[in-house]
Amino acid sequence: MKKPTILISNDDGIESEGIKALWRAIRKFAEVIVVAPNTQQSAVGHSITVSSPVRYRKNLIDKNYYGYAVEGSPADSVKLAVRNILKGKKIDLLLSGINHGANTAINIIYSGTVSAATEGTILGIPSIAVSLASFTYNDFSVAAGFASQIAKTVLKKGLPLGTLLNVNIPAKSREEINGVLITKQGKSVWDDHYEQRLDPNKREYFWLSGKMKILDNDPDYDQTAIGENYISVTPVHYDLTNYALLDELKSWDLKLKK
Amino acid sequence: MKKPTILISNDDGIESEGIKALWRAIRKFAEVIVVAPNTQQSAVGHSITVSSPVRYRKNLIDKNYYGYAVEGSPADSVKLAVRNILKGKKIDLLLSGINHGANTAINIIYSGTVSAATEGTILGIPSIAVSLASFTYNDFSVAAGFASQIAKTVLKKGLPLGTLLNVNIPAKSREEINGVLITKQGKSVWDDHYEQRLDPNKREYFWLSGKMKILDNDPDYDQTAIGENYISVTPVHYDLTNYALLDELKSWDLKLKK
Repeated sequence: MKKPTILISNDDGIESEGIKALWRAIRKFAEVIVVAPNTQQSAVGHSITVSSPVRYRKNLIDKNYYGYAVEGSPADSVKLAVRNILKGKKIDLLLSGINHGANTAINIIYSGTVSAATEGTILGIPSIAVSLASFTYNDFSVAAGFASQIAKTVLKKGLPLGTLLNVNIPAKSREEINGVLITKQGKSVWDDHYEQRLDPNKREYFWLSGKMKILDNDPDYDQTAIGENYISVTPVHYDLTNYALLDELKSWDLKLKK
Repeated sequence: MKKPTILISNDDGIESEGIKALWRAIRKFAEVIVVAPNTQQSAVGHSITVSSPVRYRKNLIDKNYYGYAVEGSPADSVKLAVRNILKGKKIDLLLSGINHGANTAINIIYSGTVSAATEGTILGIPSIAVSLASFTYNDFSVAAGFASQIAKTVLKKGLPLGTLLNVNIPAKSREEINGVLITKQGKSVWDDHYEQRLDPNKREYFWLSGKMKILDNDPDYDQTAIGENYISVTPVHYDLTNYALLDELKSWDLKLKK
Protein backbone atom coordinates (compact mmCIF):
# COMPACT_ATOMS: atom_id res chain seq x y z
CA MET A 1 0.00 0.00 0.00
CA LYS A 2 1.21 3.50 -0.83
CA LYS A 3 2.43 5.46 2.19
CA PRO A 4 0.29 8.47 3.10
CA THR A 5 1.82 11.97 2.69
CA ILE A 6 1.78 13.96 5.92
CA LEU A 7 2.69 17.63 6.31
CA ILE A 8 4.04 18.59 9.74
CA SER A 9 4.15 22.16 11.06
CA ASN A 10 4.07 23.89 14.46
CA ASP A 11 4.47 27.23 16.23
CA ASP A 12 7.46 26.46 18.46
CA GLY A 13 9.73 26.59 15.40
CA ILE A 14 11.46 24.01 13.25
CA GLU A 15 14.29 23.52 15.78
CA SER A 16 11.97 22.53 18.66
CA GLU A 17 12.11 19.12 20.29
CA GLY A 18 8.35 18.67 19.88
CA ILE A 19 8.36 18.80 16.08
CA LYS A 20 11.33 16.43 15.93
CA ALA A 21 9.63 13.91 18.22
CA LEU A 22 6.51 14.08 16.03
CA TRP A 23 8.55 13.68 12.85
CA ARG A 24 10.38 10.62 14.23
CA ALA A 25 7.07 8.92 15.14
CA ILE A 26 5.17 9.74 11.94
CA ARG A 27 7.97 8.84 9.46
CA LYS A 28 7.57 5.21 10.58
CA PHE A 29 4.42 4.91 8.47
CA ALA A 30 4.23 7.99 6.25
CA GLU A 31 6.10 10.18 3.82
CA VAL A 32 6.66 13.28 5.95
CA ILE A 33 7.37 16.86 4.89
CA VAL A 34 8.22 19.37 7.63
CA VAL A 35 7.45 23.05 6.90
CA ALA A 36 7.50 25.25 9.98
CA PRO A 37 8.41 28.73 11.23
CA ASN A 38 12.15 29.34 11.56
CA THR A 39 11.67 30.84 15.03
CA GLN A 40 9.39 30.36 18.03
CA GLN A 41 5.97 32.00 17.42
CA SER A 42 4.08 32.48 20.65
CA ALA A 43 0.45 33.59 20.77
CA VAL A 44 0.50 34.71 17.15
CA GLY A 45 -3.11 33.67 16.60
CA HIS A 46 -4.18 33.10 13.00
CA SER A 47 -1.90 35.78 11.55
CA ILE A 48 -0.87 35.65 7.94
CA THR A 49 1.70 37.80 6.15
CA VAL A 50 0.15 39.85 3.36
CA SER A 51 1.90 43.22 3.38
CA SER A 52 5.46 41.92 3.14
CA PRO A 53 7.13 38.98 1.38
CA VAL A 54 7.85 35.60 2.96
CA ARG A 55 10.90 33.43 2.35
CA TYR A 56 11.95 29.93 3.23
CA ARG A 57 15.15 27.88 3.31
CA LYS A 58 15.99 24.20 3.69
CA ASN A 59 16.73 23.24 7.27
CA LEU A 60 18.39 20.06 8.51
CA ILE A 61 16.03 18.15 10.84
CA ASP A 62 18.17 15.09 11.38
CA LYS A 63 20.91 13.25 9.49
CA ASN A 64 20.13 13.43 5.75
CA TYR A 65 16.65 14.78 6.32
CA TYR A 66 15.77 18.36 5.42
CA GLY A 67 12.65 20.35 6.27
CA TYR A 68 11.69 23.87 5.25
CA ALA A 69 12.04 26.83 7.64
CA VAL A 70 9.66 29.71 6.86
CA GLU A 71 10.27 33.32 7.91
CA GLY A 72 6.67 33.76 9.00
CA SER A 73 3.78 32.53 11.12
CA PRO A 74 2.42 28.98 11.46
CA ALA A 75 -0.41 29.83 9.03
CA ASP A 76 2.16 31.28 6.57
CA SER A 77 4.14 28.02 6.80
CA VAL A 78 1.13 25.86 5.98
CA LYS A 79 -0.10 28.10 3.18
CA LEU A 80 3.37 28.37 1.62
CA ALA A 81 3.83 24.58 1.91
CA VAL A 82 0.53 23.83 0.17
CA ARG A 83 0.51 26.62 -2.42
CA ASN A 84 4.18 26.57 -3.34
CA ILE A 85 6.65 24.09 -1.80
CA LEU A 86 4.37 21.05 -2.31
CA LYS A 87 2.29 22.53 -5.11
CA GLY A 88 0.30 19.87 -6.91
CA LYS A 89 1.21 17.13 -4.41
CA LYS A 90 -1.72 15.49 -2.60
CA ILE A 91 -1.36 15.95 1.16
CA ASP A 92 -3.35 13.35 3.07
CA LEU A 93 -3.04 14.87 6.54
CA LEU A 94 -1.57 17.83 8.41
CA LEU A 95 -0.18 17.53 11.94
CA SER A 96 0.72 20.62 13.96
CA GLY A 97 2.94 20.21 17.00
CA ILE A 98 3.90 18.75 19.32
CA ASN A 99 3.43 22.04 21.16
CA HIS A 100 5.10 22.60 24.51
CA GLY A 101 2.15 23.74 26.64
CA ALA A 102 -1.59 23.05 26.55
CA ASN A 103 -3.87 24.64 23.95
CA THR A 104 -7.20 24.51 25.72
CA ALA A 105 -10.12 26.81 26.57
CA ILE A 106 -9.48 30.48 25.62
CA ASN A 107 -5.89 29.67 24.58
CA ILE A 108 -7.22 28.13 21.36
CA ILE A 109 -7.95 31.69 20.17
CA TYR A 110 -4.30 32.76 20.58
CA SER A 111 -2.72 29.46 19.57
CA GLY A 112 -0.30 29.25 16.65
CA THR A 113 -0.44 25.45 16.89
CA VAL A 114 -4.20 25.40 16.34
CA SER A 115 -3.81 28.14 13.70
CA ALA A 116 -1.55 25.94 11.55
CA ALA A 117 -4.19 23.19 11.71
CA THR A 118 -6.95 25.73 10.95
CA GLU A 119 -5.07 26.85 7.83
CA GLY A 120 -4.80 23.19 6.85
CA THR A 121 -8.57 22.72 7.08
CA ILE A 122 -9.16 25.96 5.13
CA LEU A 123 -6.98 24.46 2.39
CA GLY A 124 -9.06 21.25 2.47
CA ILE A 125 -6.59 18.99 4.35
CA PRO A 126 -7.71 16.89 7.36
CA SER A 127 -5.73 18.46 10.22
CA ILE A 128 -4.79 17.70 13.82
CA ALA A 129 -3.18 20.00 16.41
CA VAL A 130 -1.20 18.19 19.11
CA SER A 131 -0.05 19.76 22.40
CA LEU A 132 1.72 18.42 25.47
CA ALA A 133 0.23 20.07 28.56
CA SER A 134 3.45 21.33 30.15
CA PHE A 135 6.13 23.90 29.38
CA THR A 136 8.81 21.90 31.18
CA TYR A 137 8.09 18.15 30.78
CA ASN A 138 10.43 16.98 28.03
CA ASP A 139 9.26 13.42 27.38
CA PHE A 140 7.27 13.60 24.14
CA SER A 141 6.98 9.80 23.75
CA VAL A 142 3.37 9.35 24.92
CA ALA A 143 2.26 12.41 22.93
CA ALA A 144 4.07 11.26 19.78
CA GLY A 145 2.63 7.76 20.18
CA PHE A 146 -0.93 9.03 20.49
CA ALA A 147 -0.37 11.47 17.59
CA SER A 148 0.59 8.49 15.38
CA GLN A 149 -2.43 6.55 16.53
CA ILE A 150 -4.99 9.34 15.92
CA ALA A 151 -3.29 10.24 12.63
CA LYS A 152 -3.91 6.70 11.40
CA THR A 153 -7.52 6.84 12.58
CA VAL A 154 -8.16 10.14 10.76
CA LEU A 155 -6.47 8.82 7.59
CA LYS A 156 -9.01 5.98 7.71
CA LYS A 157 -12.14 7.84 8.88
CA GLY A 158 -11.56 11.36 7.48
CA LEU A 159 -12.83 14.62 8.97
CA PRO A 160 -15.63 16.88 7.74
CA LEU A 161 -14.40 19.88 5.72
CA GLY A 162 -13.63 22.82 8.00
CA THR A 163 -13.18 20.83 11.22
CA LEU A 164 -9.88 19.93 12.86
CA LEU A 165 -9.06 17.88 15.94
CA ASN A 166 -7.39 19.71 18.82
CA VAL A 167 -5.53 17.11 20.90
CA ASN A 168 -4.03 17.82 24.33
CA ILE A 169 -1.97 15.22 26.16
CA PRO A 170 -1.25 15.29 29.92
CA ALA A 171 2.43 15.53 30.90
CA LYS A 172 2.30 12.07 32.46
CA SER A 173 3.64 8.60 31.86
CA ARG A 174 1.52 6.13 29.89
CA GLU A 175 0.56 4.32 33.11
CA GLU A 176 -0.74 7.51 34.75
CA ILE A 177 -3.01 8.44 31.83
CA ASN A 178 -6.65 7.47 32.45
CA GLY A 179 -7.80 7.30 28.83
CA VAL A 180 -9.08 9.47 25.98
CA LEU A 181 -12.06 11.86 26.21
CA ILE A 182 -13.91 13.68 23.45
CA THR A 183 -14.31 17.19 24.84
CA LYS A 184 -15.67 20.68 24.29
CA GLN A 185 -13.57 23.87 24.35
CA GLY A 186 -13.46 25.02 27.99
CA LYS A 187 -14.73 28.35 29.26
CA SER A 188 -11.64 29.24 31.31
CA VAL A 189 -10.05 32.62 30.54
CA TRP A 190 -6.92 34.44 31.69
CA ASP A 191 -6.81 36.45 34.86
CA ASP A 192 -4.00 38.65 33.62
CA HIS A 193 -2.39 42.03 34.18
CA TYR A 194 0.53 44.06 32.90
CA GLU A 195 3.64 44.38 35.03
CA GLN A 196 4.79 47.95 34.73
CA ARG A 197 8.58 48.38 34.66
CA LEU A 198 11.27 50.87 33.71
CA ASP A 199 13.87 50.09 31.06
CA PRO A 200 17.57 51.02 31.53
CA ASN A 201 16.76 54.41 29.97
CA LYS A 202 13.97 54.96 32.52
CA ARG A 203 11.31 54.52 29.87
CA GLU A 204 8.15 52.72 30.96
CA TYR A 205 7.22 49.33 29.51
CA PHE A 206 4.51 46.75 30.19
CA TRP A 207 4.78 43.00 30.26
CA LEU A 208 1.76 40.69 30.23
CA SER A 209 1.56 38.29 33.15
CA GLY A 210 -1.17 36.15 34.64
CA LYS A 211 -2.69 32.80 35.31
CA MET A 212 -5.70 30.93 34.01
CA LYS A 213 -8.96 31.40 35.85
CA ILE A 214 -10.45 27.89 35.81
CA LEU A 215 -14.18 28.12 35.08
CA ASP A 216 -14.97 24.47 34.32
CA ASN A 217 -14.87 21.42 36.55
CA ASP A 218 -16.35 18.82 34.23
CA PRO A 219 -14.04 16.56 32.18
CA ASP A 220 -16.42 17.14 29.27
CA TYR A 221 -14.22 20.22 28.81
CA ASP A 222 -10.65 20.12 27.49
CA GLN A 223 -8.91 21.91 30.38
CA THR A 224 -10.52 19.76 33.07
CA ALA A 225 -10.00 16.52 31.12
CA ILE A 226 -6.23 16.96 31.02
CA GLY A 227 -6.25 18.06 34.67
CA GLU A 228 -7.76 14.65 35.44
CA ASN A 229 -5.06 12.90 33.36
CA TYR A 230 -7.18 12.20 30.28
CA ILE A 231 -6.05 12.85 26.73
CA SER A 232 -8.46 15.48 25.38
CA VAL A 233 -9.71 15.46 21.75
CA THR A 234 -11.86 18.47 20.74
CA PRO A 235 -13.48 18.96 17.32
CA VAL A 236 -12.78 22.61 16.40
CA HIS A 237 -14.16 24.51 13.43
CA TYR A 238 -13.84 28.04 12.06
CA ASP A 239 -17.52 28.82 11.65
CA LEU A 240 -17.72 31.50 14.33
CA THR A 241 -21.44 32.23 13.90
CA ASN A 242 -23.38 32.12 17.16
CA TYR A 243 -26.46 30.50 15.62
CA ALA A 244 -28.36 30.64 18.92
CA LEU A 245 -28.44 34.44 18.70
CA LEU A 246 -29.75 34.82 15.13
CA ASP A 247 -33.46 34.91 16.03
CA GLU A 248 -32.94 37.27 18.97
CA LEU A 249 -31.06 39.72 16.72
CA LYS A 250 -33.76 39.51 14.05
CA SER A 251 -36.28 40.55 16.70
CA TRP A 252 -34.28 43.77 17.28
CA ASP A 253 -35.68 44.91 13.92
CA LEU A 254 -32.58 46.96 12.99
CA LYS A 255 -33.12 49.54 10.26
CA LEU A 256 -30.72 52.08 8.75
CA LYS A 257 -32.14 55.42 9.88
CA LYS A 258 -32.68 58.07 7.23
CA MET B 1 -28.45 60.64 32.29
CA LYS B 2 -24.78 59.69 32.60
CA LYS B 3 -23.02 59.31 29.27
CA PRO B 4 -21.87 55.77 28.44
CA THR B 5 -18.11 55.07 28.30
CA ILE B 6 -17.05 53.61 24.96
CA LEU B 7 -13.60 52.22 24.10
CA ILE B 8 -12.65 52.49 20.42
CA SER B 9 -9.90 50.43 18.79
CA ASN B 10 -9.09 49.09 15.32
CA ASP B 11 -6.46 47.36 13.22
CA ASP B 12 -5.78 50.03 10.60
CA GLY B 13 -3.92 52.08 13.23
CA ILE B 14 -4.71 55.17 15.26
CA GLU B 15 -3.98 57.53 12.36
CA SER B 16 -6.53 55.95 10.01
CA GLU B 17 -9.51 57.87 8.68
CA GLY B 18 -11.89 55.10 9.73
CA ILE B 19 -11.14 55.36 13.45
CA LYS B 20 -11.41 59.14 13.32
CA ALA B 21 -14.79 59.00 11.57
CA LEU B 22 -16.01 56.54 14.22
CA TRP B 23 -14.67 58.73 17.06
CA ARG B 24 -16.40 61.83 15.67
CA ALA B 25 -19.76 60.01 15.45
CA ILE B 26 -19.62 58.28 18.85
CA ARG B 27 -18.40 61.27 20.90
CA LYS B 28 -21.76 62.95 20.19
CA PHE B 29 -23.41 60.73 22.81
CA ALA B 30 -20.62 59.00 24.75
CA GLU B 31 -17.40 59.49 26.62
CA VAL B 32 -14.91 57.99 24.17
CA ILE B 33 -11.42 56.61 24.79
CA VAL B 34 -9.35 55.64 21.74
CA VAL B 35 -6.66 52.99 22.27
CA ALA B 36 -5.35 51.51 19.02
CA PRO B 37 -2.21 50.15 17.35
CA ASN B 38 0.31 52.83 16.36
CA THR B 39 0.70 51.29 12.90
CA GLN B 40 -1.44 49.42 10.35
CA GLN B 41 -1.90 45.77 11.39
CA SER B 42 -3.09 43.66 8.48
CA ALA B 43 -4.21 40.04 8.86
CA VAL B 44 -2.67 39.76 12.32
CA GLY B 45 -5.42 37.45 13.55
CA HIS B 46 -5.89 37.22 17.29
CA SER B 47 -2.21 37.68 18.12
CA ILE B 48 -1.14 38.91 21.52
CA THR B 49 2.33 39.94 22.65
CA VAL B 50 3.61 37.74 25.47
CA SER B 51 7.32 37.25 24.87
CA SER B 52 8.28 40.92 24.62
CA PRO B 53 7.09 44.12 26.33
CA VAL B 54 4.46 46.48 24.95
CA ARG B 55 4.49 50.27 25.25
CA TYR B 56 2.06 53.06 24.51
CA ARG B 57 2.13 56.82 24.09
CA LYS B 58 -0.46 59.56 23.90
CA ASN B 59 -1.44 60.40 20.35
CA LEU B 60 -3.33 63.47 19.13
CA ILE B 61 -6.58 62.42 17.42
CA ASP B 62 -7.99 65.87 16.81
CA LYS B 63 -7.64 69.32 18.34
CA ASN B 64 -7.30 68.92 22.14
CA TYR B 65 -8.23 65.25 22.05
CA TYR B 66 -5.64 62.57 22.76
CA GLY B 67 -5.88 58.83 22.27
CA TYR B 68 -3.36 56.13 23.11
CA ALA B 69 -1.15 54.52 20.45
CA VAL B 70 0.01 51.00 21.34
CA GLU B 71 3.11 49.34 19.90
CA GLY B 72 1.31 46.05 19.40
CA SER B 73 -1.63 44.21 17.89
CA PRO B 74 -5.35 45.10 18.08
CA ALA B 75 -5.82 42.51 20.87
CA ASP B 76 -2.81 43.99 22.74
CA SER B 77 -4.41 47.44 22.47
CA VAL B 78 -7.71 46.30 23.96
CA LYS B 79 -6.10 44.24 26.72
CA LEU B 80 -3.70 47.07 27.66
CA ALA B 81 -6.57 49.57 27.64
CA VAL B 82 -8.73 47.47 29.95
CA ARG B 83 -6.03 46.07 32.24
CA ASN B 84 -3.90 49.19 32.56
CA ILE B 85 -4.81 52.48 30.85
CA LEU B 86 -8.45 52.42 31.99
CA LYS B 87 -7.94 50.10 34.94
CA GLY B 88 -10.93 50.14 37.28
CA LYS B 89 -13.07 52.23 34.91
CA LYS B 90 -16.32 50.62 33.76
CA ILE B 91 -16.37 50.33 29.97
CA ASP B 92 -19.91 50.01 28.63
CA LEU B 93 -19.06 49.11 25.05
CA LEU B 94 -16.15 48.46 22.72
CA LEU B 95 -16.21 49.45 19.06
CA SER B 96 -13.53 48.26 16.65
CA GLY B 97 -13.16 50.04 13.32
CA ILE B 98 -14.17 51.46 11.01
CA ASN B 99 -12.06 49.04 9.00
CA HIS B 100 -11.23 49.80 5.38
CA GLY B 101 -12.29 46.55 3.68
CA ALA B 102 -14.92 43.91 4.43
CA ASN B 103 -14.43 41.35 7.22
CA THR B 104 -16.68 38.54 6.05
CA ALA B 105 -16.54 34.77 5.49
CA ILE B 106 -13.05 33.28 6.00
CA ASN B 107 -11.56 36.78 6.51
CA ILE B 108 -13.00 36.85 10.03
CA ILE B 109 -10.30 34.33 11.00
CA TYR B 110 -7.49 36.65 9.90
CA SER B 111 -9.13 39.92 10.93
CA GLY B 112 -7.49 42.26 13.43
CA THR B 113 -10.71 44.30 13.53
CA VAL B 114 -12.73 41.31 14.70
CA SER B 115 -9.84 40.28 16.99
CA ALA B 116 -10.03 43.59 18.92
CA ALA B 117 -13.77 42.98 19.44
CA THR B 118 -13.10 39.34 20.43
CA GLU B 119 -10.62 40.50 23.07
CA GLY B 120 -13.30 42.90 24.31
CA THR B 121 -15.81 40.08 24.74
CA ILE B 122 -13.17 37.90 26.47
CA LEU B 123 -12.73 40.77 28.94
CA GLY B 124 -16.51 40.90 29.48
CA ILE B 125 -17.30 44.04 27.42
CA PRO B 126 -20.13 44.05 24.84
CA SER B 127 -18.23 44.53 21.57
CA ILE B 128 -18.94 45.42 17.94
CA ALA B 129 -16.59 45.21 14.92
CA VAL B 130 -17.42 47.63 12.10
CA SER B 131 -16.05 47.40 8.56
CA LEU B 132 -16.68 49.33 5.36
CA ALA B 133 -16.66 46.91 2.43
CA SER B 134 -14.13 48.68 0.24
CA PHE B 135 -10.42 49.46 0.33
CA THR B 136 -10.86 52.65 -1.71
CA TYR B 137 -14.25 54.23 -0.88
CA ASN B 138 -13.46 57.06 1.54
CA ASP B 139 -16.90 58.18 2.69
CA PHE B 140 -17.32 56.73 6.17
CA SER B 141 -20.53 58.71 6.93
CA VAL B 142 -23.08 55.91 6.43
CA ALA B 143 -20.87 53.43 8.30
CA ALA B 144 -20.29 55.84 11.21
CA GLY B 145 -24.00 56.64 11.36
CA PHE B 146 -24.99 52.97 11.52
CA ALA B 147 -22.21 52.28 14.05
CA SER B 148 -23.73 54.95 16.33
CA GLN B 149 -27.17 53.48 15.87
CA ILE B 150 -26.22 49.87 16.65
CA ALA B 151 -23.99 51.02 19.53
CA LYS B 152 -27.02 52.65 21.14
CA THR B 153 -29.10 49.51 20.56
CA VAL B 154 -26.47 47.27 22.17
CA LEU B 155 -26.08 49.68 25.11
CA LYS B 156 -29.82 49.21 25.67
CA LYS B 157 -30.21 45.48 24.88
CA GLY B 158 -26.79 44.06 25.84
CA LEU B 159 -25.09 41.05 24.31
CA PRO B 160 -24.58 37.57 25.78
CA LEU B 161 -21.12 37.05 27.29
CA GLY B 162 -18.69 35.79 24.67
CA THR B 163 -20.60 37.01 21.60
CA LEU B 164 -19.76 40.09 19.53
CA LEU B 165 -21.49 41.65 16.54
CA ASN B 166 -19.56 41.73 13.28
CA VAL B 167 -20.99 44.56 11.16
CA ASN B 168 -20.16 45.08 7.48
CA ILE B 169 -21.43 48.09 5.57
CA PRO B 170 -21.60 48.30 1.76
CA ALA B 171 -19.55 51.09 0.18
CA LYS B 172 -22.70 52.82 -1.02
CA SER B 173 -24.71 55.95 -0.37
CA ARG B 174 -27.55 55.79 2.14
CA GLU B 175 -30.10 55.75 -0.73
CA GLU B 176 -28.48 52.75 -2.40
CA ILE B 177 -28.50 50.60 0.77
CA ASN B 178 -31.40 48.14 0.84
CA GLY B 179 -31.57 47.60 4.61
CA VAL B 180 -30.04 45.58 7.42
CA LEU B 181 -29.78 41.77 7.47
CA ILE B 182 -28.85 39.44 10.34
CA THR B 183 -26.43 37.00 8.73
CA LYS B 184 -24.23 33.94 9.20
CA GLN B 185 -20.49 33.83 8.51
CA GLY B 186 -20.09 32.96 4.82
CA LYS B 187 -18.29 29.89 3.49
CA SER B 188 -16.20 31.72 0.89
CA VAL B 189 -12.43 31.18 1.09
CA TRP B 190 -9.40 32.59 -0.71
CA ASP B 191 -8.22 31.26 -4.03
CA ASP B 192 -4.66 32.41 -3.47
CA HIS B 193 -1.12 31.74 -4.58
CA TYR B 194 2.38 33.08 -3.98
CA GLU B 195 4.01 35.25 -6.60
CA GLN B 196 7.61 34.18 -6.83
CA ARG B 197 10.08 37.03 -7.42
CA LEU B 198 13.76 37.90 -7.13
CA ASP B 199 14.98 40.72 -4.90
CA PRO B 200 17.73 43.16 -6.06
CA ASN B 201 20.31 40.71 -4.70
CA LYS B 202 18.79 37.89 -6.78
CA ARG B 203 17.39 36.18 -3.70
CA GLU B 204 14.00 34.53 -4.09
CA TYR B 205 10.97 35.86 -2.22
CA PHE B 206 7.24 35.03 -2.21
CA TRP B 207 4.29 37.40 -2.00
CA LEU B 208 0.75 36.23 -1.26
CA SER B 209 -1.81 37.19 -3.89
CA GLY B 210 -5.31 36.04 -4.70
CA LYS B 211 -9.00 36.67 -4.83
CA MET B 212 -11.96 35.40 -2.87
CA LYS B 213 -13.69 32.30 -4.21
CA ILE B 214 -17.37 33.08 -3.61
CA LEU B 215 -19.14 29.96 -2.31
CA ASP B 216 -22.44 31.48 -1.11
CA ASN B 217 -25.24 33.09 -3.05
CA ASP B 218 -27.79 33.58 -0.31
CA PRO B 219 -28.01 36.93 1.53
CA ASP B 220 -28.39 34.91 4.75
CA TYR B 221 -24.56 34.99 4.57
CA ASP B 222 -22.45 38.09 5.29
CA GLN B 223 -20.52 38.23 2.01
CA THR B 224 -23.61 37.91 -0.20
CA ALA B 225 -25.64 40.34 1.91
CA ILE B 226 -23.17 43.19 1.36
CA GLY B 227 -22.90 42.22 -2.32
CA GLU B 228 -26.66 42.86 -2.55
CA ASN B 229 -26.24 46.26 -0.80
CA TYR B 230 -27.45 45.18 2.64
CA ILE B 231 -25.73 46.06 5.90
CA SER B 232 -24.68 42.70 7.39
CA VAL B 233 -24.79 42.01 11.16
CA THR B 234 -23.36 38.62 12.24
CA PRO B 235 -23.29 37.31 15.82
CA VAL B 236 -19.77 35.89 16.29
CA HIS B 237 -18.49 33.92 19.28
CA TYR B 238 -15.21 32.30 20.26
CA ASP B 239 -16.54 28.88 21.20
CA LEU B 240 -14.91 26.94 18.36
CA THR B 241 -16.29 23.53 19.35
CA ASN B 242 -17.99 21.72 16.47
CA TYR B 243 -20.77 20.26 18.63
CA ALA B 244 -22.23 18.36 15.68
CA LEU B 245 -19.14 16.14 15.60
CA LEU B 246 -18.97 15.16 19.29
CA ASP B 247 -21.09 12.02 19.01
CA GLU B 248 -19.36 10.83 15.84
CA LEU B 249 -15.96 11.17 17.52
CA LYS B 250 -17.17 9.31 20.62
CA SER B 251 -18.16 6.43 18.33
CA TRP B 252 -14.51 6.19 17.16
CA ASP B 253 -13.80 4.69 20.58
CA LEU B 254 -10.27 6.11 20.82
CA LYS B 255 -8.01 4.46 23.37
CA LEU B 256 -4.36 5.09 24.23
CA LYS B 257 -2.59 1.94 23.07
CA LYS B 258 -0.30 0.20 25.51
